[in-house]
Amino acid sequence: MGQINTTVGDFAGNVAKVVEVIGRAKALGVDLVTFPELAICGYPPEDLLLKPQFIGENVKGLHRVVEESHGIGVVVGFVDAAEDIYNAAAIIHDGELADVYHKVFLPNYGVFDEDRYFRAGSECPVYVIGGIGIGVNICEDIWYEAGPATAQAYAGAEVIVNISASPYHLGRSDFRQRMLATRAADNVAIVLHTNLVGGQDELVFDGNSMAFDQLGRLLARGKHFDEDLVVVDLDVEAVFRSRLRDSRLRKETLLLGHKEWNTPRKEVSQTGNTVSRPPLPQRRAEVRDGPGEVYEALVLGTRDYIRKNGFGKVVIGLSGGIDSSLVAAIAVDALGPSNVVGVSMPSRYSSAGSRSDAELLAKSLGVELMTVSIEQVYQSYLDVVAGPFAGTEPNVAEENIQARIRGNLLMALSNKFGWLVLTTGNKSEMATGYATLYGDMAGGFAVIKDVTKTMVYRLAEYRNATAGRELIPSSVIAKPPSAELRPDQVDTDSLPAYEVLDPVLVAYVEEDRSVEQIVAMGFDESVVRRVAHLVDRSEYKRRQAPPGVKITPKAFGRDRRLPITNRFEG
Amino acid sequence: MGQINTTVGDFAGNVAKVVEVIGRAKALGVDLVTFPELAICGYPPEDLLLKPQFIGENVKGLHRVVEESHGIGVVVGFVDAAEDIYNAAAIIHDGELADVYHKVFLPNYGVFDEDRYFRAGSECPVYVIGGIGIGVNICEDIWYEAGPATAQAYAGAEVIVNISASPYHLGRSDFRQRMLATRAADNVAIVLHTNLVGGQDELVFDGNSMAFDQLGRLLARGKHFDEDLVVVDLDVEAVFRSRLRDSRLRKETLLLGHKEWNTPRKEVSQTGNTVSRPPLPQRRAEVRDGPGEVYEALVLGTRDYIRKNGFGKVVIGLSGGIDSSLVAAIAVDALGPSNVVGVSMPSRYSSAGSRSDAELLAKSLGVELMTVSIEQVYQSYLDVVAGPFAGTEPNVAEENIQARIRGNLLMALSNKFGWLVLTTGNKSEMATGYATLYGDMAGGFAVIKDVTKTMVYRLAEYRNATAGRELIPSSVIAKPPSAELRPDQVDTDSLPAYEVLDPVLVAYVEEDRSVEQIVAMGFDESVVRRVAHLVDRSEYKRRQAPPGVKITPKAFGRDRRLPITNRFEG
Repeated sequence: MGQINTTVGDFAGNVAKVVEVIGRAKALGVDLVTFPELAICGYPPEDLLLKPQFIGENVKGLHRVVEESHGIGVVVGFVDAAEDIYNAAAIIHDGELADVYHKVFLPNYGVFDEDRYFRAGSECPVYVIGGIGIGVNICEDIWYEAGPATAQAYAGAEVIVNISASPYHLGRSDFRQRMLATRAADNVAIVLHTNLVGGQDELVFDGNSMAFDQLGRLLARGKHFDEDLVVVDLDVEAVFRSRLRDSRLRKETLLLGHKEWNTPRKEVSQTGNTVSRPPLPQRRAEVRDGPGEVYEALVLGTRDYIRKNGFGKVVIGLSGGIDSSLVAAIAVDALGPSNVVGVSMPSRYSSAGSRSDAELLAKSLGVELMTVSIEQVYQSYLDVVAGPFAGTEPNVAEENIQARIRGNLLMALSNKFGWLVLTTGNKSEMATGYATLYGDMAGGFAVIKDVTKTMVYRLAEYRNATAGRELIPSSVIAKPPSAELRPDQVDTDSLPAYEVLDPVLVAYVEEDRSVEQIVAMGFDESVVRRVAHLVDRSEYKRRQAPPGVKITPKAFGRDRRLPITNRFEG
Repeated sequence: MGQINTTVGDFAGNVAKVVEVIGRAKALGVDLVTFPELAICGYPPEDLLLKPQFIGENVKGLHRVVEESHGIGVVVGFVDAAEDIYNAAAIIHDGELADVYHKVFLPNYGVFDEDRYFRAGSECPVYVIGGIGIGVNICEDIWYEAGPATAQAYAGAEVIVNISASPYHLGRSDFRQRMLATRAADNVAIVLHTNLVGGQDELVFDGNSMAFDQLGRLLARGKHFDEDLVVVDLDVEAVFRSRLRDSRLRKETLLLGHKEWNTPRKEVSQTGNTVSRPPLPQRRAEVRDGPGEVYEALVLGTRDYIRKNGFGKVVIGLSGGIDSSLVAAIAVDALGPSNVVGVSMPSRYSSAGSRSDAELLAKSLGVELMTVSIEQVYQSYLDVVAGPFAGTEPNVAEENIQARIRGNLLMALSNKFGWLVLTTGNKSEMATGYATLYGDMAGGFAVIKDVTKTMVYRLAEYRNATAGRELIPSSVIAKPPSAELRPDQVDTDSLPAYEVLDPVLVAYVEEDRSVEQIVAMGFDESVVRRVAHLVDRSEYKRRQAPPGVKITPKAFGRDRRLPITNRFEG
């Protein structure tokens, strides 16, 4: 299983990766090497699929792979173009394109828009190579109990090859593993799940490719959040024996599969590619726990966004608060300390503690820290708005001017030196609109926009624990969160405590629960109403936010598409 | 045909409008009154459809309409909830819900995501009221030649009622009219097309509801870009006579319809609601030409975004250039001069002509003009970045600081006084990234973001012609476009002339043509490559742009979904 990190539209780069892995696999004596969904063009290509020249380049890329596949079997994802386009898998055998499989189930929910582009396939063949039946299918296809994988097993496939681009969110890899194990055991078939790895705009693919035997036992697992070539010996004889010995194939499921699906048997080759060699070593990458997994996802998502978009360095406004400190730590882990620049931009409202915490953090992370006071610039704004603002009380207008001066300074550094600005807002702020548009929201990538404030703390503690020291100073973690835009301001002036706010947000935003239902969970009604109102009224801000890594089941962005103009409350 | 302007999520308001129109229709002696697609909940509700409480409120809203429908027939769009949700039409007769039709063709391209939410219907009934067959279908359903409308006509419907939410773009209403006339003539059926009117985020629905007789002749048309109740007497006897006299029903089409569709005949009532009354007067609203139509779309889209989001006044940075002048004119037409505030923000690089043109324009439009020099603030930024910028040449960094000061000042006025900031960038700029993120792109609504620069000029000239005077001063129209961010800057320093740029952009952005194809159209290859590169590299900016009115077949926004991370060129 060639678990590679592709880039959307980088045909030369993606094909080179595929070819390089084919070479390594051949050297190892591998019979069949598999690559992720749409590996040739990258995933998800979105509206690039509407460009005929994009489809054409992708077909050329596939042909280059076919030419490099002498003496080995290859399954690789690409876009097939016939009377329409299909999300497809090429079945290549010994330098020949043997067949093309078309994805049957096209996801069109959450972050997915596959009905927008592709026609669905309707055939689930079993490819016979050296007497072994192989069923190939793509991502969503294997999530259906009575779907293509089951139909193929019933029709004689001992091995199910599923190629995927299954995006990460917290808790998903466990669920995916259980689903795949069940599919293997229920169908008494070996299941190979080859997943994409890497970041693409708001999505991170976690890799974590897995192989299961016909009893649903995990045989091998690829790395989380990194490229890998996972080699595993498959005992197909054991599948034959299991199927003869007991009939664990569940009858109802199979009957359903039998009736609904078109499962032709296609002879690819009378012989396999097997060369004689010693058994391959079993390998199984370690799995991290909750915060560790999220942290790794954020690091990879950030690194890939920056590198794939051609940036070298990033710049971050360091307030001395927990959010910017965590973002800086992630950036350092993603790019190295020499590629991260911190900027401290104190004002009249910045506490001495904030300034010293920013310095402490920069020292701890080993990053350059620039200090630019916003005081003089802020005063010049106050001078010119004195006329228009005459007779008004200070309010959010004066507060936001400060945040936007900082945004302007960071963007000026970005424009001058070609650094990408990382923003530091968390999901609790994005949800409630507790952030200044064009101020602290200004930047190219919003690293923790899908991380709630309570998870921010867990991640900081996780990172300190793995560092074995206060990488993020304890004073940063201990102090009450504040935007420091007016005297003695703290977040709880405007928002409920985060221990209350965050579970309400999860229920309202991620689970689409009603105010009534959330109140029934035990929260104060006025708090719930206020939070729901804040979320609804902040859609216009989120629409102008930079992208950031999705780590929850429902992130802001393509995942949650709400109208700005909307009078519905509740 | 009740051509109403609904608001997404405003159940009370939408139901009140429907009930009010039902009352007026009853008073006129109307038999059957029709309302747009999803009129109860507003269109498009997007992910609000994932909230069960939203669906529930919508069902309650429908029941209120049913209760108000004694003595009349009503067809109204709502979300039907059974084992899944459907984009549905309620067929109401004399205070009873007679049946529910489920939309068969769910659009899932362009701005549409209906597969994300709805299950498709599979039945195309003919409702029989007083011996007359009525086929009800929804929007996309009638765009298919061998679709539900044809099947219903074949199965005995003399009248086809199509309820729609068909968004505007330039040229669409002509095309829609030809399609509907063809459908009526081919099926020898009366066609009533009731379309939504109003703005919803980036979409404008143009109204323009139409009735055709069985020969495809236009009987009546509702207003463009305004609410209307279009009443028309239908000569159903003429349909019977036409069908007896000749068999203009095209056989192949009908056979197709006959085979594919399930068309039960459902008796709703032995008698119609007809009361005896004199014939209703024929009415047909005037249609405007190209620029006039676009201008009206922009006015309605702007007005509805502002009003439906609860804003009273808007503020616009007036540079003295054509873009901001046109936006100000549109805002005045949308909201009245007393609700528009102009702000002139000159710098060291602003020409005397720009300042005086801004003043001239404000006077001409009758809007308040504030003047806030950015000079002092700009100097204070230069002072604080002098250290970090030491040893560098002035570049886009210094230019963008100025644009972002203006953005900050406009947002400060917005935050202080509750005014919405209108941005003034056009499509040519949005496409090529010739705009400053958080600078001139800062604001709540981007009025002309889908209008190319060459169309900006046409619209300015159109508005001056309808005003019969230089509403937009000729000096504004005549001078070469400039951002005035450095000495003697003009747009053509960075961009090809707009007469070249705009057609290249239409080909590349709206028509997805390749660089090769555009060169073959007669454009210089280096220009085309440069433009394509600029468009591809500016996706990150557009992702953070405010919404604006879609007026072309493909607008930036939900309509064109490209990855930011993308190495494909061409």
